[in-house]
Amino acid sequence: MNIKITGTGSYIPDTIEKNTAFYEHTFLNNDGTVINSPNEVIIEKFQAITGIAERRYAKAHLNSSDLGFFAAERAINDAKIDPETIDYIIVAHNFGDVKYNMNQSDLVPCLAARIKHSLRIKNPKCVAYDILFGCPGWIEGVIQAKAYIQAGMAKRCLVIGSETLSRVVDKHDRDSMIFSDGAGATIIEATEEAGGILAHETSSFTYDEAYYLYFGNSNNQNLSKDTRYIKMDGRKIYEFALVHVPQAIKTCLDNCGLDIKDVKKIFLHQANEKMDEAILKRLYRLYRTEIPEGIMPMSIQKLGNSSVATVPTLFDLVRNNKLENHSLTKGDVIIFASVGAGMHINAIAYKY
Amino acid sequence: MNIKITGTGSYIPDTIEKNTAFYEHTFLNNDGTVINSPNEVIIEKFQAITGIAERRYAKAHLNSSDLGFFAAERAINDAKIDPETIDYIIVAHNFGDVKYNMNQSDLVPCLAARIKHSLRIKNPKCVAYDILFGCPGWIEGVIQAKAYIQAGMAKRCLVIGSETLSRVVDKHDRDSMIFSDGAGATIIEATEEAGGILAHETSSFTYDEAYYLYFGNSNNQNLSKDTRYIKMDGRKIYEFALVHVPQAIKTCLDNCGLDIKDVKKIFLHQANEKMDEAILKRLYRLYRTEIPEGIMPMSIQKLGNSSVATVPTLFDLVRNNKLENHSLTKGDVIIFASVGAGMHINAIAYKY
Repeated sequence: MNIKITGTGSYIPDTIEKNTAFYEHTFLNNDGTVINSPNEVIIEKFQAITGIAERRYAKAHLNSSDLGFFAAERAINDAKIDPETIDYIIVAHNFGDVKYNMNQSDLVPCLAARIKHSLRIKNPKCVAYDILFGCPGWIEGVIQAKAYIQAGMAKRCLVIGSETLSRVVDKHDRDSMIFSDGAGATIIEATEEAGGILAHETSSFTYDEAYYLYFGNSNNQNLSKDTRYIKMDGRKIYEFALVHVPQAIKTCLDNCGLDIKDVKKIFLHQANEKMDEAILKRLYRLYRTEIPEGIMPMSIQKLGNSSVATVPTLFDLVRNNKLENHSLTKGDVIIFASVGAGMHINAIAYKY
Repeated sequence: MNIKITGTGSYIPDTIEKNTAFYEHTFLNNDGTVINSPNEVIIEKFQAITGIAERRYAKAHLNSSDLGFFAAERAINDAKIDPETIDYIIVAHNFGDVKYNMNQSDLVPCLAARIKHSLRIKNPKCVAYDILFGCPGWIEGVIQAKAYIQAGMAKRCLVIGSETLSRVVDKHDRDSMIFSDGAGATIIEATEEAGGILAHETSSFTYDEAYYLYFGNSNNQNLSKDTRYIKMDGRKIYEFALVHVPQAIKTCLDNCGLDIKDVKKIFLHQANEKMDEAILKRLYRLYRTEIPEGIMPMSIQKLGNSSVATVPTLFDLVRNNKLENHSLTKGDVIIFASVGAGMHINAIAYKY
């Protein structure tokens, strides 16, 4: 028995928020002091580092569970399965449904129950739950689906990553420009077909790193202390990711007896272009090998960082030949890897 | 190989909130109209149905992840294990950390990462994630731990249920009197000892039932529509639970070839005394059998409904002979069962 992804779908919101949309923002330092640069310079520097030129925001009437539902519908259609045969719906997110212009996370019922409701699935034996695991949530959901299949508790799972980060950003923080909205979904199932998940690796670094990403007050100290936003210590995250993500990928490959030369594509969480490139460099340095051309598809330039949605969305784009110069061939060994709040890191080696 | 609970711990907050504390509240109907009864009558009626005379509230400086940490420390000590040997920390909750007098759910990092941080566990291979699954979250966490152990991905897991519902209640809603704060934790591990998990059963009823419990506005229509609270359709939940919980328990027992006569204790989610008694009645009616004396330990009278924490807390109390007239003997077959937002139902048959 192998465990394969038999369908993918993603939902990329139509609303494009270009960097120019931030020209009128009042950006402040963490301590509330004014940044001594014009916004044009701040934004230019931001784009040079992160690679982000634009990002997507969900329409005001849609919430994270709606985005997840749209992506799920597409994955189900792509896999050509009867939704009533799904054993698990696993939804990864980090903020629940946050209504437009509101600041509360709506978590009851869990988003998986909402999405199952919207999919009109009747079968009560389809277990619908949410996981919170930072940006690596979708990959971790796939690993959990694998566990249920191996334990004989499931044959077919729907794993979704969905997030509306545009609703939890501090407009006075330059980091607000990173974040985006979106959803990706996949059908994971037991199959006799060749390939599938070869190995996986997960780590939770919490001893010193637990609060590198956190929920904190606005940089604008005149705003209410009662409202908090997504906040991060970008420098620490960068240094952490550079050490630990390459190692996790290598361990994952070691676990299935493969070399980096066997890998055709690396689907890395889209958090920051320069960081992703540095991770790649470190990874290949571990093997004392040159980085092959076109190994790492990227969507961050146009889609920003949509947390749990970046990896499944990117995979869906490449699988459907919607990302220029990238394609997949049956038998290709690929890597999914992510890093995020927790700090959690994970990786999957997969034969397409 | 068997899968057993080798340690338990719970954290019951010291602060007792008696029913008399609600005498000065202004209770309103869902449509905002005044209830034509004095509070004394409302509260007397409430107690007659739910059985709740008092409940526990967390101290203002403590959050849900703190409660979970205290319970986890006790479970680790009880199991006499080295915390560095834990493979998974699974934390069930439904609202994250909600600071006292605030209304936002703090979910980043996930509560499992916070608790692992507080436990000072260094091992990065200990994977720490949260699940959202309504009140049945702790039982579902145990089922997930079982999957990892069976799939060879773990040997030892820490499963926690923690909640501070006192911080998400609408003071103008009579249902606010039901909810309570608390945490329960357990160590689940692979063992050669006899007994352990015999069977499990989970269902997610979302087609018509997804929004029986939801996040909604205050009954006081003068309050801001921007703030929402835990809300429920008590009548629908009652009718739903009466049909489906006994059936889930029976399926669970059928799955391991046991009869209701083999069962020594039933640890049922403590949501409402009359509802729990009615569920028990229906369960034994399925078997055309009398209900044995002392089969269902109850803590709701003094602890209220602390969601994911009720079952592990109740089990911890009975296991440590802290609940009058209840005790457990090696070899006893027991049932854990829960129902809650989603609507999710689950049950585990377990040999003590």
